[in-house]
Amino acid sequence: MSPAFLEAARAIVGPEFALAGSDIEPRYLEPARYAPGQAAALLRPATATQVAELVALAAAHDLTLVPQGAHTGLVRAATPTDAGRHVLLATDRLREHFDFDPLDRTLRVSAGYKLSEINERLEPEGLFFPIDLSADPSVGGMLAHNTGGTRMLRYGDVRANTLGLAVVLPQGQVLQAGRGLQKDNTGLALQQLFVGSSGSLGLITEATLKLHPLPRQRAAALVAPADVESVLPLYQALMASELAGLVSAFEGISRPALQAALEHLGDAGKLFDGQLPEYALLIELASELPAARLDLNALLQEVLEREFESGRVVDAVIGADEEIWALRHSISEGLRDWGKVIGFDISLPRRHFMRFRAEGAVWLAKHFPPARLADFGHLGDGGLHFNLAWPHEAPPLDAEAMARLRAGINDIVLRLGGSFSAEHGVGPQIQQAYWQLSDPVGLRLAGEIQVLLNPKQTLGLTRFGPAE
Amino acid sequence: MSPAFLEAARAIVGPEFALAGSDIEPRYLEPARYAPGQAAALLRPATATQVAELVALAAAHDLTLVPQGAHTGLVRAATPTDAGRHVLLATDRLREHFDFDPLDRTLRVSAGYKLSEINERLEPEGLFFPIDLSADPSVGGMLAHNTGGTRMLRYGDVRANTLGLAVVLPQGQVLQAGRGLQKDNTGLALQQLFVGSSGSLGLITEATLKLHPLPRQRAAALVAPADVESVLPLYQALMASELAGLVSAFEGISRPALQAALEHLGDAGKLFDGQLPEYALLIELASELPAARLDLNALLQEVLEREFESGRVVDAVIGADEEIWALRHSISEGLRDWGKVIGFDISLPRRHFMRFRAEGAVWLAKHFPPARLADFGHLGDGGLHFNLAWPHEAPPLDAEAMARLRAGINDIVLRLGGSFSAEHGVGPQIQQAYWQLSDPVGLRLAGEIQVLLNPKQTLGLTRFGPAE
Repeated sequence: MSPAFLEAARAIVGPEFALAGSDIEPRYLEPARYAPGQAAALLRPATATQVAELVALAAAHDLTLVPQGAHTGLVRAATPTDAGRHVLLATDRLREHFDFDPLDRTLRVSAGYKLSEINERLEPEGLFFPIDLSADPSVGGMLAHNTGGTRMLRYGDVRANTLGLAVVLPQGQVLQAGRGLQKDNTGLALQQLFVGSSGSLGLITEATLKLHPLPRQRAAALVAPADVESVLPLYQALMASELAGLVSAFEGISRPALQAALEHLGDAGKLFDGQLPEYALLIELASELPAARLDLNALLQEVLEREFESGRVVDAVIGADEEIWALRHSISEGLRDWGKVIGFDISLPRRHFMRFRAEGAVWLAKHFPPARLADFGHLGDGGLHFNLAWPHEAPPLDAEAMARLRAGINDIVLRLGGSFSAEHGVGPQIQQAYWQLSDPVGLRLAGEIQVLLNPKQTLGLTRFGPAE
Repeated sequence: MSPAFLEAARAIVGPEFALAGSDIEPRYLEPARYAPGQAAALLRPATATQVAELVALAAAHDLTLVPQGAHTGLVRAATPTDAGRHVLLATDRLREHFDFDPLDRTLRVSAGYKLSEINERLEPEGLFFPIDLSADPSVGGMLAHNTGGTRMLRYGDVRANTLGLAVVLPQGQVLQAGRGLQKDNTGLALQQLFVGSSGSLGLITEATLKLHPLPRQRAAALVAPADVESVLPLYQALMASELAGLVSAFEGISRPALQAALEHLGDAGKLFDGQLPEYALLIELASELPAARLDLNALLQEVLEREFESGRVVDAVIGADEEIWALRHSISEGLRDWGKVIGFDISLPRRHFMRFRAEGAVWLAKHFPPARLADFGHLGDGGLHFNLAWPHEAPPLDAEAMARLRAGINDIVLRLGGSFSAEHGVGPQIQQAYWQLSDPVGLRLAGEIQVLLNPKQTLGLTRFGPAE
């Protein structure tokens, strides 16, 4: 990076928002799950116009701009790694728009807002953006990775709830893709290209989001099925039942994941009288109807009693929604207490879900015996966080071993028709898997599209074309 | 077209499925709303492999292949017009796959199946593909135009319910885009490019569709609001109420549209005691819960009584769901009885919905006095079919007048932030509007993508780049 670049950037955003070297606050360089990165500079624009100027400036200087939202991503797409050529562009000051349309139930919002802020501000309107995660991403980050989360089963992913985007293209032009309308088919769906593109096709500065009514009641249960074989029949029965439209979450939690969360919360032994099931389910119903119309707690109780009688359920905790969700959202932290977390963000056809779990566990035990597997996930939409803790006391995995580990698990995923990146998107962390496991026709086409949009790779770290 | 092309095509699909000249059945050349077209040949492949061979063959012969599903589209994207260079490829024999996955609730289905067939076959499973239209399109056609329909409000459009595609690219390669999983972010969302691309980027041979549980009950009402001003407040109240999650349709019908449908059905005078309101609403609730749990008819009655008391509703027909929907689906035919139908497939931010109707009507009366406006549409998702009948007895509109008419209405649409093609997609019929009204940055990018995929324009009739 030349001093001229920094000077020009400072002229655009102001000197306090274009920093270099040790002036960069560490949090911008420290990703959630991996080693810290490094950057030549950190830029923090406050407007979409500034973003466009900075993107054009970086392209002119042949530097790579790395967009970063709340830095909660798990594929390392937002962490720069080159102290000479990577310039970090943090979107945290992009807060120009927060335009709520009550009649359309949409929100035009700048990329820098966080999910939690949006939902806090919308609560008095009785509306929300229905993405539910353990993390608190920014609008831009959610879009760049097409986040799923625990309530996708009911509301769909970020893509399904996005009605328009403003994007700065890698040469600095501004593309307004989509008018924020519910229905609009006036050309190619360009906006869809940027959703899930990890910031490597364009930099999203603004989105128009589709909002949903806040449920007036929820009822959650933590369920112990009789055995793993009962889980999918139970799911099937529920989704074919009259309650199908009410199910807002159907999460699977393996015994070790349950244990990790309980240990983290200091509650171990309290749940299920200390007899943790091999696999647990978090089932949630939600409705806009008040309990006086339709009592979800009673309905859930009814279902569980029926399942208890059928023998598919042996125990359940009900009427403790907050505790149950706290438990669910503590799994990741609990796992970190056990060691270095190695995550696999998988989805599978449901018919192969349990088979994958079994085969994956066997493979892991054989090839990486110290690994402590503690999988959990969004079973309701086929998602599985096949996560493991590599104990602090075990000899650390080197890059080659890590690559073998990833390849071994991903092979099973592919063989069973699954996805090796269900909801985290693509980034340097899974770049190898992307290259190895993608369909060659799609890989070539994706690469051609990236070259078309981002010819000099001056934006983002993800490579969508074939390995060179 | 050379005899060699026809011979080679016959070798691929068999002589009875590669026809030329007068052997082509007229229905393949006669679109729903416009004058007949012409084609050098008609090809009717039965497998995706045959499609790939034909696409490559046409490209090699520099002919333009025009894909056609059930030929129900309204932008003329599937009607060839050049007897020398256009080769029609009908997908009606593409019926290789109908693979239902009960656990994932997905259907992998070939492009040639029709919507009605899918839903008839899925009914015993208690599932359906939730697109509801007056027409009966093929799977391929629905995808190529990203169809909306009357229940989009609740279930989303075709895009939102598509989990994977198989596409033959314009040079004959086969792209498998998406694995049919609920969540999969393993790269650029290439499949999204083909949804709504009018068959001009690739030919969709197969899709994996997301299915929904069939409601166990529905309750519809045809409502007469006090006046046009009451309509959106009524909508707003309903969508903010505890019933929001139950609303499955909210359709607006202007008095002339109501009249056209009633005349067509021979029922004129019976409805609302012959006192047709200026604007009527079709409101439908639906639920997977049976009436014993939640009585939708009673709930709807309750809402209407409340709205009657508030003064926003003056009359309503309830408990006649079938008749009400038959009426709704007869508007288009009724309008055809009145004259030549000129349709505008618009959507608008709801806050400008009624303003557009008023301004559009005034403009039309001033510039095209014989036009009989009879608008209706999916008010619940901002959609508006601003359709008019040009009376048979009026002097027919020439091309120049038609262009002026389209431009005049579309100008108002754009000024009010609307879409000039809400759910029909882009095709030759609105090619001029597309060129004139699209954002230049998006237009250029779309054109570059089309050149990348379909460099010699040997597939499809729609041009996504700027006018040459």
